[in-house]
Amino acid sequence: MSDKPLVGILMGSDNDYEVMAEAAHALKSFGVPLEMTVSSAHRTPERTAKYVRSAKERGLKVLIAGAGAAAHLAGVVAAESTLPVIAVPIDATSLGGLDALLAMVQMPAGIPVATMAIGKAGARNAGLFAVQILATADESLALRLADYKVELANGVEKKAKSLAERLVRDGF
Amino acid sequence: MSDKPLVGILMGSDNDYEVMAEAAHALKSFGVPLEMTVSSAHRTPERTAKYVRSAKERGLKVLIAGAGAAAHLAGVVAAESTLPVIAVPIDATSLGGLDALLAMVQMPAGIPVATMAIGKAGARNAGLFAVQILATADESLALRLADYKVELANGVEKKAKSLAERLVRDGF
Amino acid sequence: MSDKPLVGILMGSDNDYEVMAEAAHALKSFGVPLEMTVSSAHRTPERTAKYVRSAKERGLKVLIAGAGAAAHLAGVVAAESTLPVIAVPIDATSLGGLDALLAMVQMPAGIPVATMAIGKAGARNAGLFAVQILATADESLALRLADYKVELANGVEKKAKSLAERLVRDGF
Amino acid sequence: MSDKPLVGILMGSDNDYEVMAEAAHALKSFGVPLEMTVSSAHRTPERTAKYVRSAKERGLKVLIAGAGAAAHLAGVVAAESTLPVIAVPIDATSLGGLDALLAMVQMPAGIPVATMAIGKAGARNAGLFAVQILATADESLALRLADYKVELANGVEKKAKSLAERLVRDGF
Amino acid sequence: MSDKPLVGILMGSDNDYEVMAEAAHALKSFGVPLEMTVSSAHRTPERTAKYVRSAKERGLKVLIAGAGAAAHLAGVVAAESTLPVIAVPIDATSLGGLDALLAMVQMPAGIPVATMAIGKAGARNAGLFAVQILATADESLALRLADYKVELANGVEKKAKSLAERLVRDGF
Amino acid sequence: MSDKPLVGILMGSDNDYEVMAEAAHALKSFGVPLEMTVSSAHRTPERTAKYVRSAKERGLKVLIAGAGAAAHLAGVVAAESTLPVIAVPIDATSLGGLDALLAMVQMPAGIPVATMAIGKAGARNAGLFAVQILATADESLALRLADYKVELANGVEKKAKSLAERLVRDGF
Amino acid sequence: MSDKPLVGILMGSDNDYEVMAEAAHALKSFGVPLEMTVSSAHRTPERTAKYVRSAKERGLKVLIAGAGAAAHLAGVVAAESTLPVIAVPIDATSLGGLDALLAMVQMPAGIPVATMAIGKAGARNAGLFAVQILATADESLALRLADYKVELANGVEKKAKSLAERLVRDGF
Amino acid sequence: MSDKPLVGILMGSDNDYEVMAEAAHALKSFGVPLEMTVSSAHRTPERTAKYVRSAKERGLKVLIAGAGAAAHLAGVVAAESTLPVIAVPIDATSLGGLDALLAMVQMPAGIPVATMAIGKAGARNAGLFAVQILATADESLALRLADYKVELANGVEKKAKSLAERLVRDGF
Repeated sequence: MSDKPLVGILMGSDNDYEVMAEAAHALKSFGVPLEMTVSSAHRTPERTAKYVRSAKERGLKVLIAGAGAAAHLAGVVAAESTLPVIAVPIDATSLGGLDALLAMVQMPAGIPVATMAIGKAGARNAGLFAVQILATADESLALRLADYKVELANGVEKKAKSLAERLVRDGF
Repeated sequence: MSDKPLVGILMGSDNDYEVMAEAAHALKSFGVPLEMTVSSAHRTPERTAKYVRSAKERGLKVLIAGAGAAAHLAGVVAAESTLPVIAVPIDATSLGGLDALLAMVQMPAGIPVATMAIGKAGARNAGLFAVQILATADESLALRLADYKVELANGVEKKAKSLAERLVRDGF
Repeated sequence: MSDKPLVGILMGSDNDYEVMAEAAHALKSFGVPLEMTVSSAHRTPERTAKYVRSAKERGLKVLIAGAGAAAHLAGVVAAESTLPVIAVPIDATSLGGLDALLAMVQMPAGIPVATMAIGKAGARNAGLFAVQILATADESLALRLADYKVELANGVEKKAKSLAERLVRDGF
Repeated sequence: MSDKPLVGILMGSDNDYEVMAEAAHALKSFGVPLEMTVSSAHRTPERTAKYVRSAKERGLKVLIAGAGAAAHLAGVVAAESTLPVIAVPIDATSLGGLDALLAMVQMPAGIPVATMAIGKAGARNAGLFAVQILATADESLALRLADYKVELANGVEKKAKSLAERLVRDGF
Repeated sequence: MSDKPLVGILMGSDNDYEVMAEAAHALKSFGVPLEMTVSSAHRTPERTAKYVRSAKERGLKVLIAGAGAAAHLAGVVAAESTLPVIAVPIDATSLGGLDALLAMVQMPAGIPVATMAIGKAGARNAGLFAVQILATADESLALRLADYKVELANGVEKKAKSLAERLVRDGF
Repeated sequence: MSDKPLVGILMGSDNDYEVMAEAAHALKSFGVPLEMTVSSAHRTPERTAKYVRSAKERGLKVLIAGAGAAAHLAGVVAAESTLPVIAVPIDATSLGGLDALLAMVQMPAGIPVATMAIGKAGARNAGLFAVQILATADESLALRLADYKVELANGVEKKAKSLAERLVRDGF
Repeated sequence: MSDKPLVGILMGSDNDYEVMAEAAHALKSFGVPLEMTVSSAHRTPERTAKYVRSAKERGLKVLIAGAGAAAHLAGVVAAESTLPVIAVPIDATSLGGLDALLAMVQMPAGIPVATMAIGKAGARNAGLFAVQILATADESLALRLADYKVELANGVEKKAKSLAERLVRDGF
Repeated sequence: MSDKPLVGILMGSDNDYEVMAEAAHALKSFGVPLEMTVSSAHRTPERTAKYVRSAKERGLKVLIAGAGAAAHLAGVVAAESTLPVIAVPIDATSLGGLDALLAMVQMPAGIPVATMAIGKAGARNAGLFAVQILATADESLALRLADYKVELANGVEKKAKSLAERLVRDGF
């Protein structure tokens, strides 16, 4: 895999970086080159449109968009591209991210947006889902995903062992 | 007042016409010329942007956008114009319009969208609010609004009288 | 533009000042003279009605009302005036502002209230929306709004640059 | 008990009559004289205020207010009177009455409103609660309330018997 | 008014004391004698029933019940008495008190419960509403309630003055 | 298994019969004798308490309670018995059963109530869960449950076959 | 493209067929071969696991899972495969599909599920999103997607024209 | 009662231990032997299935599953066993546990899951409910449950006494 980015991560505000970095970490751990920038559906509609329209030509295969509140970024991105768009709703208001979730997931027929969970778990999964998309045409990535599933399971086994020790200490 | 439209009404789908016609009726009853069309934030982003960018030059003073589900239309319109944008959330999914409401009202700082109630009441109020905006610089419209308030009150008085008669019939 | 206030900001409680000051800052940054006071729909209905009924005569063009909980202030203000009324729902209870939002946005047909987002973003946008209303009859304000949109976009560009540097530091 | 009304029932719209008649029926079944009218918090603020301000002098002891959507009527009534105000949220929008419920029940400290269930059950209970209030100073009413509780219980016993017969028919 | 309690305040858990003390303070400020105790609908159903059944004989005129989560206390109290029962939903779980609110307010026809706002504002209003009930048969209390309304209004005026000074300091 | 009822089904109103009959059908299909009656937490608190207090002596092993709105029945039953209590929230108001669900499931520590899904699916599962409880001490019932799981799976297989045929007809 | 299915559509119940057929139609209109079957996470866990584990070997590239209520199907499928899994929440209970939406979208980190809108719009988009995934490695599909975007836009233009005619008829 | 575990407690993540330990404490206080481990529906589906399938043979009578977010664990466990499964929704996201609650309680007909309250209260009740299940066939446990109910009531009485003292101190 070359270093040319395959996945573009957009976020509506630099406040979202801490959350969206989870997506980047997931991609990086699979060796998938990525790029990441700030672009707003509302404050920089042209910048966003320009970025998205050139995405496919520049070699991007998947786009990830994270935003909070009336989170239009993913929908606006999906309107301008035929690439798969993954959405990460961010908990940025007093409504716990329910606003961003509904603003992203309830897309009308014709313009799909693949919505993940609210917040960091969703951002990490956005990265992993981008890997899964790429892996549909890249068997070595598919193998690494299979390994990752084993690691996840091993992680649970390890935690189960730690818990077993703790249970003894706690008198159960 | 000339016949040149002062208010532009956009709807995301022609399914929204029955609701959005309420806004047009309200404007018409005040003699405010309007135009109305279908344009989608997601299916026709360019058409929408072109419409909005030319709106001010063409003499429009206020824009009204109605949409359901992940209702991005008003936000997308507001991103492209400095005209006041009024949003009408439409009950188009199984969530009763809560999705459209949150997707419209929770706009981030910098790009205001004036959200009305879900559905027909909201559409009628969108038309009236546009009149109120125009009336800030048009005293004759302001006077008509004052008359309208009197009519509203008279309507309630009339209903109170009908109810009084019905109460007698119903034995109260 | 003279110093006579064009926009009146009402809040239901002085606890709401920190939020509603955002509206005032937005107006001030556009040179729009404003006034701001505390008046409660429930504790001082007469004070509120008197304030609102004299608003137009005193030269006010737009009213902004911020309140939390069963937030009736904007509706009560709109009942007494033909001026455009902008509502800011405030997160003042354990329900995250959803109560204030619904109590403001779901106005019945005939009495429009233009609802903004919950909290500070909504208050800032209330100020900006008031500017947009005034700008429909004031081309110099409209130009300043166009400048503001450019500033917003430049702000995003700047943040995108900062993020680009941070990404290098963070190893992406 | 004279025929002079002791309870005043207000509704925001004549559409609410079918629901609010439940309150009237409850009062009538206890022989409590009542009056009922339409008055809107938003369309007829003065009519509402005038009605409420004269309520105590005219001998009313309790006020009941039913409204839907951004249901401000009960709060506006409570702002103008020291009489106990009972609120009935009405399911009048696509949000199932949750908007009216929150707009009524979340009153700020200082201005209580006693909220009942959404819809007809709530309206009936509003009537009964008014009777309970009056009964705090009217022992004969209190006795009739005790009888009513027995009737309610008997009604359940009767239904239990009918069900027992049905169970046999249904083969349980 | 003698010292014999006229209002009984029940709470489901002593954790609720801080909230429910607001009701007691309201009553005390009007000179209404009260009693307050802990009794659970679920943990001490008999204690609760015994307390409620003897309430009227012991001279109580109004009952106030505060509870969180699946808040059955007010309904259980109302099932056992013909006295007016006021409910205070308490924010005691991760759902912000919405659970307690719905479990209290949605009472079926026949057994009214007068629900106040979630938390301290609701508890204070529960006390005030009890005063309003008592005042329907006690003109001196009614006068004090009228005074209280004036105090509330004066409080807002005072805050408006403070805000006016602060606005000067803040440069508005 | 004798004919003496092992499971008691309570419902708050005879309107709930159509839903709660699903629980009875489930029990009957496993040959578990049951009884069913109407008893209200609010209208017949004594009848309910008497029924529940004698339940264990009369040989009942499990209690099922179905109710809508502010659904207190299951909690009130659980307060009076050490038998396992299964709750079925019923969609009986404009809130889609969310009120009944929260009023049942959010029980405080100490008084468990086992809540099922809203409506008929929940009622059927209440019956099945009662069977599962009895099966912890009745191996023949456990075997029948295992058979039932196989039947469920076979039902899905059958539907999969029907679908396969339909797909051909529909041209997929 | 051969006739070997590239996308597998699972639904939890044959009641979901009318909704999930939208996904199949979308795939068919792009010439993407698909298979569709009923398999339940809860009633046929083994059948589901077996289906999913063999999916990749059998040539499937993407899995789509539709389910209502406590919709676990997509998560269970994602647990067993490294293929991208697209989820369609179905409105099958009294909660309007909010239960299915949250049960699908809130997946924990490590096991992504790409959630679409509730109901038919979501199902259609699930099919389109599967096409977008396949198009990341199939330029001819990408071209057809670009055509489809043009068709969508043309559809809106056509509707705008029809609306223009209707507006004349309706007197606007 | 031997030391062989009768109740198996599963949690989706070791982060859930602090909550789920409440279930273990409840069981331990009744002398019911238990086992507890971490197993994920999504990360270790096979481990979970293996654990559940052997549960009955190993002597387990009841299973308890705690999980947050899209909480599928309880449903997945119930799919694989005829033992009664008790679910504890955990508040692990920005939605306050509503996601986990709906993902657990809205199980389809055929596969019951007995859902408790969100968080620690629910976990404690899960333990108590497991004791209640076991007590249907173990009279000594039933007696201990009766004692526990007395303790609960005594606890309330004690708190009522403490409150009485505090009321004197606080001047009520």
